[in-house]
Amino acid sequence: MTNTNHSTERQPTRGVSRRGLLLGAGGVVGGGLVGAAAGYSVASTAAPAAPGDLQQPVDVSPGVANTQVTVSHPYGTDTIAFYGPRQAGVDTPQQAHAIYIGLNLKDDTDADRLSSMMRLLTDDAARLTQGRGALADLDEELAAAPARLTVTFGFGSEVFDRTRPELKPAWLKPLPTYGIDQLDPAYTGGDVVIQIQGDDPLSVAHARRMLLKDARAFATVAWVQSGFTHARASRPDNTTMRNLFGQIDGTGNPEPGSERAERIIWGVGQGDGGGTKNLQPWIDNGTSMVIRRIAMNVDEWDELDRPAQEGVVGRTLGSGAPLTGEHEHDAPDFEALGPSGFPVISDISHIRRARSDDPDEAMFRRSFNYDEQPAASGDTLHGQTGVSQSGLIFVAFQCDVEQQYTPIQDRLAETDHLNLWTIPIGSAVFAVPPGCQPDGYIGEALFA
Amino acid sequence: MTNTNHSTERQPTRGVSRRGLLLGAGGVVGGGLVGAAAGYSVASTAAPAAPGDLQQPVDVSPGVANTQVTVSHPYGTDTIAFYGPRQAGVDTPQQAHAIYIGLNLKDDTDADRLSSMMRLLTDDAARLTQGRGALADLDEELAAAPARLTVTFGFGSEVFDRTRPELKPAWLKPLPTYGIDQLDPAYTGGDVVIQIQGDDPLSVAHARRMLLKDARAFATVAWVQSGFTHARASRPDNTTMRNLFGQIDGTGNPEPGSERAERIIWGVGQGDGGGTKNLQPWIDNGTSMVIRRIAMNVDEWDELDRPAQEGVVGRTLGSGAPLTGEHEHDAPDFEALGPSGFPVISDISHIRRARSDDPDEAMFRRSFNYDEQPAASGDTLHGQTGVSQSGLIFVAFQCDVEQQYTPIQDRLAETDHLNLWTIPIGSAVFAVPPGCQPDGYIGEALFA
Ligand code: HEM
Ligand code: HEM
Repeated sequence: MTNTNHSTERQPTRGVSRRGLLLGAGGVVGGGLVGAAAGYSVASTAAPAAPGDLQQPVDVSPGVANTQVTVSHPYGTDTIAFYGPRQAGVDTPQQAHAIYIGLNLKDDTDADRLSSMMRLLTDDAARLTQGRGALADLDEELAAAPARLTVTFGFGSEVFDRTRPELKPAWLKPLPTYGIDQLDPAYTGGDVVIQIQGDDPLSVAHARRMLLKDARAFATVAWVQSGFTHARASRPDNTTMRNLFGQIDGTGNPEPGSERAERIIWGVGQGDGGGTKNLQPWIDNGTSMVIRRIAMNVDEWDELDRPAQEGVVGRTLGSGAPLTGEHEHDAPDFEALGPSGFPVISDISHIRRARSDDPDEAMFRRSFNYDEQPAASGDTLHGQTGVSQSGLIFVAFQCDVEQQYTPIQDRLAETDHLNLWTIPIGSAVFAVPPGCQPDGYIGEALFA
Repeated sequence: MTNTNHSTERQPTRGVSRRGLLLGAGGVVGGGLVGAAAGYSVASTAAPAAPGDLQQPVDVSPGVANTQVTVSHPYGTDTIAFYGPRQAGVDTPQQAHAIYIGLNLKDDTDADRLSSMMRLLTDDAARLTQGRGALADLDEELAAAPARLTVTFGFGSEVFDRTRPELKPAWLKPLPTYGIDQLDPAYTGGDVVIQIQGDDPLSVAHARRMLLKDARAFATVAWVQSGFTHARASRPDNTTMRNLFGQIDGTGNPEPGSERAERIIWGVGQGDGGGTKNLQPWIDNGTSMVIRRIAMNVDEWDELDRPAQEGVVGRTLGSGAPLTGEHEHDAPDFEALGPSGFPVISDISHIRRARSDDPDEAMFRRSFNYDEQPAASGDTLHGQTGVSQSGLIFVAFQCDVEQQYTPIQDRLAETDHLNLWTIPIGSAVFAVPPGCQPDGYIGEALFA
């Protein structure tokens, strides 16, 4: 665990060495060290760019039943390192706000121009995430409080076609067509994705604008999606987020930094630990990203009573525990039978259908809620009326889409009780390249 | 200053007694006590509704150069009292997120039905702001962390027409038509406004949905606007917010709870302190609310160099100090001349034009940034292209719109250097009724 000021490198440790590290750090494996275990370093900029903005002293009164939150330092100056072998924003701790931008390359954006775009974007992402203004930025004050801002880039098929097609992973194509889908082109596809995440909506909005300025000579905006979870520091750190059905969402994820997560997300540990598939990252320290925009019909969901809602997923609403357990992280018992002889966790419940017998059919989910202006009254859009346009920006990272993601999606599309209240309305798949060093840029391997 | 658990009343104190209170509390007048001075009480719910969600112990390590924010308690359980003589959300401390909903009454919503609607809305607003689920709410977990949620109601002209027209304030009508305006019906007018503010986007989104459910039998949605400032605890408390031009926005506001604010917002102190106008609240503890949606052309603004940007407003970007001063709250000197004999703060600068010689021509601003999906590339909307649809949900509270707000708006519409980069695209005016007690409801005076 490296906590340094002005750190500029993330050092993902491999399965084995991390294991040693974790055991060294008190024998804690697989719990409580989210983030630290994922090998990222978070720093606080000692001298923020805009002094007037951030240096007021803050009162610390621990133990006092204070009615105002008391912060040892305002978290606005917290940073997550940009440079490193892997991109940040994949298995680093989840922030409160996210914006996803899908770009389509202009016709004349050839390999050379694409490389210029990625150099510009990388440089500004590195600056903004560390609390410095973008290169051409006068409003440096808006950058001074990055609040764990991360920027992550992903590439669609077209980027490989224009650079090094031989590097294109076989799984980099649209997902199969599903009967449950009602895909809207406004949220589907895209040649490049920019994922911007952070704890402060202002710095996220500012980064969005600066990065779109960099890109506009080379690409057009295909779509933009913005989402949120609960505000940082509003709940204890590491509380799993709730979605707009009120469900705790993310429990079943592999623990970042664990051997399992290393294998599932980054394809590390081939052959160890009983893996069944040949999971091979398309490039070292690279991964893949599936973005599904899924409308949630909260109005009809509200018509269900509480036991019915809990039955649909197989977990309780209060603690997120499986219906066969007590605590959020208890293992579900799919064999347990209820009084009438039926399984306690129904065979068509979401968690039963989403869990595979093959441990390599798994993903790391990092989703955000969306909640847009309600449609004008009377209109119905994706089953939703005047009260809300709500849903999930469902985001999943995995080493190999076809071997890990698609089998689960196939199974859910076939049967999942949850499908009665959800409609996928957007879909996109991207290859996530490795991180880079200060003298390099994201995607550089495609231009070698 | 009352900091009690489970407090249910706000006790706004009048100018004189507050003055005593403040002097009693160490002679501090007009500074540092925002919120406390405004007579609101903030409490922390001792036992949140969803235990699993909020009761994990939190590590407090003051003084340690910690890289994670350390909170003495997660602020999700902080509440601002709902019941009291005045509505919360006007001069109580500004939160991080806001949603404004404009409603149009259905034809058959007569006084009786309107009163039912306000009873339902009041009841659920009272519950939600205190961390309890709405009456018909199964997803009580989404309500458990209100994070200073407030709900404020305002009435348009039509509400008075259907109830007690004789109570309708003379100023309750659309603002004059201005040459600078390009009003979009999608953000203009409305019979009722619901202002939802809070520090957690999840609890704000949930409240929006619950309250719209209450209203839907009686009204249709005219418009919804959602906005944000910086995240809570990301910067020191009481830091004035920045808008998307990077400017510190709100400095010139009267200090909540001060004699000046009491007079400007609530019409208290008639005749005292050199007031020049006959400021009379339309009803005791009532006020008015002007909502202007103002597009900000950030792309063209970026073309200006820093001194030019600062000249447009008359304040520096770094600290927000007037160009004639050093600190944010220094008084601007409009007489000071620069080397070439021109005023240091230009006669057409925003702060020169916005400040009246008449101290009663003043308002309390409580604005939020908005930043929507950029228009599809190539399109131009309100002067903005593919990079952003950004601006300000400009919100002003004052006792009397015509005497206090309109003269300033007239002057700004006539000349204001800032107009070159801003376009008002929405406009609405509402009368804000007083608060209520647990046995009453907001707006009850209209049904008496
Ligand atoms: C709006 C749509 C969805 C909602 C509301 C939803 C909600 C949930 C919830 C509440 C859980 C249980 C807690 C947890 O482990 O996070 C869960 C688990 C899971 N979901 Fe979803 N989900 C949705 C869509 C999807 C999709 C599209 C996939 C993948 C194709 C997926 C894959 C999973 C997986 C793998 C798990 C973990 C199962 C396990 O325990 O092994 N979900 N989801
Ligand atoms: C997008 C549009 C606007 C922007 C970006 C903007 C920005 C600012 C800024 C940066 C200040 C200086 C700091 C402060 O005192 O807050 C200010 C002051 C002020 N603005 Fe605006 N403003 C806008 C629209 C308006 C409108 C529509 C009105 C009222 C009709 C208004 C009334 C005022 C007033 C009264 C002051 C305080 C002046 C004083 O020092 O006495 N502003 N504004």
